[in-house]
Amino acid sequence: MFCSARFANCILLAVLFVVAVLPVTAQEKNPVSIMPAPAHVTQGEGEFFIDGSFSITSEGYDEPRLARARQRFMDILHKETGIPFKRAAVVNQSHFIIQTAGPSAPVQRLGEDESYHLEISTTDVRLRAPNPLGVLRGLQTFLQLVRINEKGFSVPAVTIDDAPRFPWRGLLIDSGHRFVPIPVIKRNLDGMEAMKLNVFHWRFADDQGFHIESRKFPLLQERASDGLYYSQAEVREIIEYARDRGIRVVPEFDMPCHAKSWFKGYPDLSAGTDPLQSSAMDPTRESTYTFLASFTGEMSALFPDLYFHTGGDECDAKEWETNPRIHEYMQVHSIKDGAALQIMFTNTIERIVTRHRKIMEGWDEVLQPDTPKDVVIQSWRGPSSLAEAARNGYGVVLSSGYYIDLNQSAAEHYLVDPLGGDAAALTPEQSKHVLGGEATMWTDIVSADNLDNRIWPRTAAIAERLWSPEEIKDVDGMYQRLATVSQKLEYYGPRHRLITEEMLERMSGDPDPDALRVLAAVVQPPRMYERQDLRTFNESTALNRLDDAVPPESDTAREFDGIAQRISSGTATPQDWQQARSWLLLWRDNDAKLQPLLKRSFLTVDLAPVSSNLRHVAEIGLQALDDLHENHPVSAELRQANIDFLKSAAKPQAVLLLMPASSVERLVQATKAN
Amino acid sequence: MFCSARFANCILLAVLFVVAVLPVTAQEKNPVSIMPAPAHVTQGEGEFFIDGSFSITSEGYDEPRLARARQRFMDILHKETGIPFKRAAVVNQSHFIIQTAGPSAPVQRLGEDESYHLEISTTDVRLRAPNPLGVLRGLQTFLQLVRINEKGFSVPAVTIDDAPRFPWRGLLIDSGHRFVPIPVIKRNLDGMEAMKLNVFHWRFADDQGFHIESRKFPLLQERASDGLYYSQAEVREIIEYARDRGIRVVPEFDMPCHAKSWFKGYPDLSAGTDPLQSSAMDPTRESTYTFLASFTGEMSALFPDLYFHTGGDECDAKEWETNPRIHEYMQVHSIKDGAALQIMFTNTIERIVTRHRKIMEGWDEVLQPDTPKDVVIQSWRGPSSLAEAARNGYGVVLSSGYYIDLNQSAAEHYLVDPLGGDAAALTPEQSKHVLGGEATMWTDIVSADNLDNRIWPRTAAIAERLWSPEEIKDVDGMYQRLATVSQKLEYYGPRHRLITEEMLERMSGDPDPDALRVLAAVVQPPRMYERQDLRTFNESTALNRLDDAVPPESDTAREFDGIAQRISSGTATPQDWQQARSWLLLWRDNDAKLQPLLKRSFLTVDLAPVSSNLRHVAEIGLQALDDLHENHPVSAELRQANIDFLKSAAKPQAVLLLMPASSVERLVQATKAN
Repeated sequence: MFCSARFANCILLAVLFVVAVLPVTAQEKNPVSIMPAPAHVTQGEGEFFIDGSFSITSEGYDEPRLARARQRFMDILHKETGIPFKRAAVVNQSHFIIQTAGPSAPVQRLGEDESYHLEISTTDVRLRAPNPLGVLRGLQTFLQLVRINEKGFSVPAVTIDDAPRFPWRGLLIDSGHRFVPIPVIKRNLDGMEAMKLNVFHWRFADDQGFHIESRKFPLLQERASDGLYYSQAEVREIIEYARDRGIRVVPEFDMPCHAKSWFKGYPDLSAGTDPLQSSAMDPTRESTYTFLASFTGEMSALFPDLYFHTGGDECDAKEWETNPRIHEYMQVHSIKDGAALQIMFTNTIERIVTRHRKIMEGWDEVLQPDTPKDVVIQSWRGPSSLAEAARNGYGVVLSSGYYIDLNQSAAEHYLVDPLGGDAAALTPEQSKHVLGGEATMWTDIVSADNLDNRIWPRTAAIAERLWSPEEIKDVDGMYQRLATVSQKLEYYGPRHRLITEEMLERMSGDPDPDALRVLAAVVQPPRMYERQDLRTFNESTALNRLDDAVPPESDTAREFDGIAQRISSGTATPQDWQQARSWLLLWRDNDAKLQPLLKRSFLTVDLAPVSSNLRHVAEIGLQALDDLHENHPVSAELRQANIDFLKSAAKPQAVLLLMPASSVERLVQATKAN
Repeated sequence: MFCSARFANCILLAVLFVVAVLPVTAQEKNPVSIMPAPAHVTQGEGEFFIDGSFSITSEGYDEPRLARARQRFMDILHKETGIPFKRAAVVNQSHFIIQTAGPSAPVQRLGEDESYHLEISTTDVRLRAPNPLGVLRGLQTFLQLVRINEKGFSVPAVTIDDAPRFPWRGLLIDSGHRFVPIPVIKRNLDGMEAMKLNVFHWRFADDQGFHIESRKFPLLQERASDGLYYSQAEVREIIEYARDRGIRVVPEFDMPCHAKSWFKGYPDLSAGTDPLQSSAMDPTRESTYTFLASFTGEMSALFPDLYFHTGGDECDAKEWETNPRIHEYMQVHSIKDGAALQIMFTNTIERIVTRHRKIMEGWDEVLQPDTPKDVVIQSWRGPSSLAEAARNGYGVVLSSGYYIDLNQSAAEHYLVDPLGGDAAALTPEQSKHVLGGEATMWTDIVSADNLDNRIWPRTAAIAERLWSPEEIKDVDGMYQRLATVSQKLEYYGPRHRLITEEMLERMSGDPDPDALRVLAAVVQPPRMYERQDLRTFNESTALNRLDDAVPPESDTAREFDGIAQRISSGTATPQDWQQARSWLLLWRDNDAKLQPLLKRSFLTVDLAPVSSNLRHVAEIGLQALDDLHENHPVSAELRQANIDFLKSAAKPQAVLLLMPASSVERLVQATKAN
């Protein structure tokens, strides 16, 4: 592809090129089957082969972080290929040269340059970047390009000019509801690096627990962590680990609500007449602010990032209004309601945070008429609150639409654009206040055990939305690349696919639970908040059931649904018909094998009706395939009975959605009644 | 089972009971489906359930190592169940009580008491042991007993009195040929703990590399490790990690041969006129001994274990005899040949080792008429050399028969008894010198990438041979338990099953390589030293091919062969016939799916004939099944042609053995020619 001097056009052409090429094909033929899709790709001819002589050298600026990044790169390249590379590169014999112009900020800053230029020919690789952040991004691009073919391990000849669309691309991990062990944090930071995410939003406390060491107020962790908390040394280790990967760490201490755990050690902070019956802090006592000023001082010294998240979400005004002492204070000070009381609290906290030379970040609720303009708003309520914040000149980070704990599809998240919806009407100047977005991994219904399978691979779709040009939004192309990325992610750290397999083995007590896998491949946990309605979750719930184990999105079911759509609209290929039949046969015949096994374990016994429903759905589907294929009219009553059954089978059972039911309904709906 | 006061009889009965019960059934029905099988089991009634209220408490002697062991136990129990146990146990509410009588030795000693008594009722668990080592063993027994059933996670009510048969139960990991990273060492120590092994024999150098830090002689690692060596801090960490698991660490520094790597930094040690062309040290120079005395001093201070292994194997006398200077020395000192020169060397080294208050251990070759009686001999040459050493009063450790790098079956290793073969003729007094055995994980044809899949699960069979009563040797029962243990081992640390899966994905470039898995499940790497004849291995060989990926022993092929034996001998069940047919159909039809995929990757392209052979083998097998089932005579020529083909298909191809070929030959041989 030729690129003229008119650079903007060139980028546009490149983007269109990428969009056009990506959906067509799998990794083999597509030179840039990676996520997030780069901003600007020029395909070359041929490929660069990786063998035992491969090594990298660095030119220009260098630092220990870059040396570690090179070693990590070589270690992953070894995982990807199995080649035992020599560590001591022979001088002047390396064909991969990294040129770094200069250093990045000592503490990574919002909006720092992350661009890079990667040029791969059949003989050489050059990676150029203005600073180490761009080098980190470019190395990840190269690793994702590695593939195997009939000649060896290689990367395609290609030139990539890449830079992010948004400067704030985050993942929240909630260590408040449940403790998340350090190794789990680390491997998810590895996944973030691979997906070019750059903010780890780390939340430490909620009503359920307080999971970080305070030296000033040790009763916080001693009384409310069951011994599971991050020492300050561990926190520093994670900050360093994240910095090595070009990731900022923004801590969150949610106040004044979601704060029950604080009161186990420090009951005077509580707004409740019985301290442990309240989730809210008391905003009326001077001692509350003395405590929080001291605590904020300690924590803002521990976390070097400029931003400090103080939460502020979901206060229940009644917590204050029903306490006579607080009620009296409000009357005396002419504070009309709980919301006004929270404004007073927020403003005081903002002054404390500012005093410690930090910028406050908070959830939607902290945005009030007189909130200082440098506060950053994290928007969880929806597009209108984001647009309103930006219109008012506040920096804003979108999380509404990126709640990965709610088991939505990658496509749904993918199509949420921080500048879409109400934000589409913002002026260019206002749009600049939209800093990016954050996927939120809440742990009220997820634990460290299955965290990876909720974060990955779907968060790659969000990462692409935040990094790649706005125009890249073809869903089919995204899913094709996501399949490749999902496998590669396990080279980088996350264990999302392994976790599912291990949990199936555990719940069945079977080292090779074939029949259970067939069922597991086509069920999903219910979406949004419906799962909580069907099952009780608290911090002592064992998350070891099938709705915990399966990924939030079934690839098989999605592919089957695509086929069902094509069959019912008359656009199916012969391969579609064949694949549909082969899946339906598999599902129909699986039940007889699975039923006796389900009885053996208390964690699978209630799956019996789900499995028999799958059989019945498949039987109806096979009949519908025949009817459609032969254009055979069917009895109106039978057709209606089948539709009724399929609608009921599509409803949650054993806290699971049987996904093929609605796809088979498409098929039946496409048949003709006689 | 009732146990009388005649304790010896009771043990005997229990042993017979175990032997009788084990083969019958899978984990579900068998209360002690664990490895190594305990010495003495009394089955109770009912089971003990594990739920969120489960906790353990300690009575009697306690120490930090025991506290860590309890936490590790709870962490694995969490992995086994997914239950989020409380860390802070409520006093007096625990139903698992550990009673430890007293401490063990500060540095773990050969022959320390490792016995324990585990008593599980439906309401309580008691683990009693004389010292922490027994507690460690008993905790592992409990973890292996955990299973899932229709009522929950539980362990069976049972009373176990257990102690090892041999005091030296080891695994050698060879970090000489190739460096093995610390995390790989650690997870295999976890596996050793689970299998109650108690000696980690750690070999650091060979011709190919020198992989441990010497501070006195830093050029050793600087010149011969490519930067990959264990720092002394890491070594101490591993020693501590092993001690926590009741495992001694015996270091080996092989001398005077296999020593080429030493000469890169210190050429004067070499016996060669060109130092780097020789593998042998020069035993004639005083400076050699000065160096080795100093080096041994440094290393014997680093490793607290009483035993210090100085190798001594496989010297080539020509290395000395062809060097004129050494030749002259031998003439002057009336040393008749290289063997005599090695004796002189060994005796000098033994004095050095003794001076540092260590006991020398060496391979077979160090045993000479005047070798001091406290030297321990590691026998690799075979049963006669072991018996000879024991007869002469030397402590001896068996490794012949336990070479797990040579891809023998678990059954073969299992049936090698340190007191079998020539050693069966030893007197009881002489037998006491037989200390146990060691599995040897040499890395000349294995790397850290596939190490786990060579060690596990087969080493569990060796661990059982060394721990369990001699009478427990039913191979079918062992294999049944091994299947359970193999899955459980991944809870404990080793990644043997995952490694195979990851390597299949990598070599195919396919996230779900179904058809390749079918082929992979029935091939094995060639056995003994044949693999080295078929493929070149050196330290830069990428071990990423199918013969690296598949386990040394195919479970599917072994089970199919059992069925083929029963069919050809007329003892098959209807299930046998059905299973045989179903496998043969799978194999026959797999080739058409697999062939187009194999072409896509340079690592799979040469598997095409193996896959088509499997198809052909299966076709012949299906025909033979029909012929046998209908008692149908077949053409003599066709029968002979099939036998000829099957014999040739059983030979290695693409460095792989196609295991079903010989089983199908059994079927064809059972048909009648007309």
